[in-house]
Amino acid sequence: MAENRRFLLARRPEGEPVPEDFMLVTEPVPAPPPGGIVVRNHYASLDPAQRGWMDDTESYMPPIPLGDPVRATTVGVVHASDNPDFAVGQWVMGLNALEDYSVAMPGGFTMPIDVEAVASPSNFLSALGAVGLTAYFGLTEVAKPRPGETLLVSGAAGAVGSAVGQIGRIMGCRVVGIAGGAEKCRRLIDDYGFDAAIDYKGKDHASLVSEIAAAAPDGVNVVFENVGGPVLEAEVFTLAHHARIVLCGLIAEYNTPEKLGLRNLWQILARRATIHGFLIADYAHRFAEGGAQMAQWLAEGKLRADEDVQEGLENAYPAFMRLFSGANTGKLVLKIA
Amino acid sequence: MAENRRFLLARRPEGEPVPEDFMLVTEPVPAPPPGGIVVRNHYASLDPAQRGWMDDTESYMPPIPLGDPVRATTVGVVHASDNPDFAVGQWVMGLNALEDYSVAMPGGFTMPIDVEAVASPSNFLSALGAVGLTAYFGLTEVAKPRPGETLLVSGAAGAVGSAVGQIGRIMGCRVVGIAGGAEKCRRLIDDYGFDAAIDYKGKDHASLVSEIAAAAPDGVNVVFENVGGPVLEAEVFTLAHHARIVLCGLIAEYNTPEKLGLRNLWQILARRATIHGFLIADYAHRFAEGGAQMAQWLAEGKLRADEDVQEGLENAYPAFMRLFSGANTGKLVLKIA
Repeated sequence: MAENRRFLLARRPEGEPVPEDFMLVTEPVPAPPPGGIVVRNHYASLDPAQRGWMDDTESYMPPIPLGDPVRATTVGVVHASDNPDFAVGQWVMGLNALEDYSVAMPGGFTMPIDVEAVASPSNFLSALGAVGLTAYFGLTEVAKPRPGETLLVSGAAGAVGSAVGQIGRIMGCRVVGIAGGAEKCRRLIDDYGFDAAIDYKGKDHASLVSEIAAAAPDGVNVVFENVGGPVLEAEVFTLAHHARIVLCGLIAEYNTPEKLGLRNLWQILARRATIHGFLIADYAHRFAEGGAQMAQWLAEGKLRADEDVQEGLENAYPAFMRLFSGANTGKLVLKIA
Repeated sequence: MAENRRFLLARRPEGEPVPEDFMLVTEPVPAPPPGGIVVRNHYASLDPAQRGWMDDTESYMPPIPLGDPVRATTVGVVHASDNPDFAVGQWVMGLNALEDYSVAMPGGFTMPIDVEAVASPSNFLSALGAVGLTAYFGLTEVAKPRPGETLLVSGAAGAVGSAVGQIGRIMGCRVVGIAGGAEKCRRLIDDYGFDAAIDYKGKDHASLVSEIAAAAPDGVNVVFENVGGPVLEAEVFTLAHHARIVLCGLIAEYNTPEKLGLRNLWQILARRATIHGFLIADYAHRFAEGGAQMAQWLAEGKLRADEDVQEGLENAYPAFMRLFSGANTGKLVLKIA
């Protein structure tokens, strides 16, 4: 008889999550509710945003209730169905949880996916999923860079950042990436085609400012911000007038109770820059269009999308923590089955 | 023989300016350089921005050099001219300094003004000058509020803030103002027609958030920010999705070496808000259009523009400090002659 292992949020982390904040339990596989389905999860997306959902703070989604499994986007197969639109065996993607089996009500985020067309179903969690679409819409619709402009990407070796940089190159930008460590910087240049890479590690504010300024001699026109904290505070001193900052993530702040934020707001004013808070959910009605463009670039070899696939629900905690240690290279995915 | 009293920046203030940071000297009246003019200043604008110009930090204008008079927008009369376009006796406005006589090179910011059409030449430093135009373009062109939206103005009883609130009402917004003290809040309602007024003094973060939220039950769609610091940090928790913040001034931060900035950047992201750094200089090519609209509203009685006229160059220091003590009511102007 199949069992349902579930990775629960046992208490709210204070700062960096510790193993005791979670609990792996085994329960019976649920039955589909009226009109609903049960999904056998195969891959789950591990994202910095999940850390935010663990806090009891006001945000764009309610906090994960204590005792519930950790919310996650997953791809999987319909295991049981009480809905005529979803046949058993159909591959689907949805906002589910870190567990073997999830109950889902079609509508909302659950949608069928065509896994025949891709190398792995997990691609729907990377280039063709929220990560790739975040990069695509954040850059093309929010920042709207023009050819010849300089694009600066923080967290550039991450899943979103590496896609942003590559799309920036396709759009004709000079692309500068900030990442942690020499190996990641090497990959920005060699694997993702960035024009310049800056290692933020061990750099004080003045060094970071001068390195960015040297890599962006005409000033930075667009920042795609995934990090925040001291990296963001350095970036604002290199902005060209009327620069646009896409505020996509703040991973430097997720585990710190005392937020640094942006102390030098004056630079935003003096440079007449704009900061755009950005969530991919606002573009849900255009996912098909964005996914088609990303798939085309992948097929043409213009875009490279790496995945860091970790295995096993029992490894959910160490896998998740790779996001914060900087260990992951490419989109972090947990293989569940 | 006329003399030229000049209010010099003697050293850079640390935090709040003290009298010893300045020096009043008397020099001979200068002669016009080739192609230039000498302006007899009658009124000078005293603005929070001048505090920023006293610092040796990177900004949209070079710092005031030590030993130079404090830079200021003035209105005055051409006293001597070596330029055929500017006759002696002509009223002009320009970016000059706190001194009896300024040397000006036409071009740049110097322009003739028609003082016959206004109650006082100082009006060109208030409703018809940078203050009025900052309110006008910041609101109509940057924030673009729609009728029925809620506009929140900080520093609302100040020169820019009171104009912003009144223009917001003309545009059909619900207008909420934040100011310091019961008397200023009374004036927001009685004199400037705000829908609601909030006194920030003595309020902690939670109280300020709940008072703003109560005054803006549908959330805040537009913030016109003149203050920054704890006031801004409270405001962001009341933003409706896709709110726009016009970042016009940060007076709470000008005298503090340790900047607070905006620690809760996450709220900007989660609410998909935008922050727009704004300087009126970007709209210089449209000043005539904006001035005409402001003059019309003034003439129609739709707009009230108060001035706080302080007298005498010898009082430049205490007059300037009224900006930071919150003593001024209306646009602060120094009458020089």
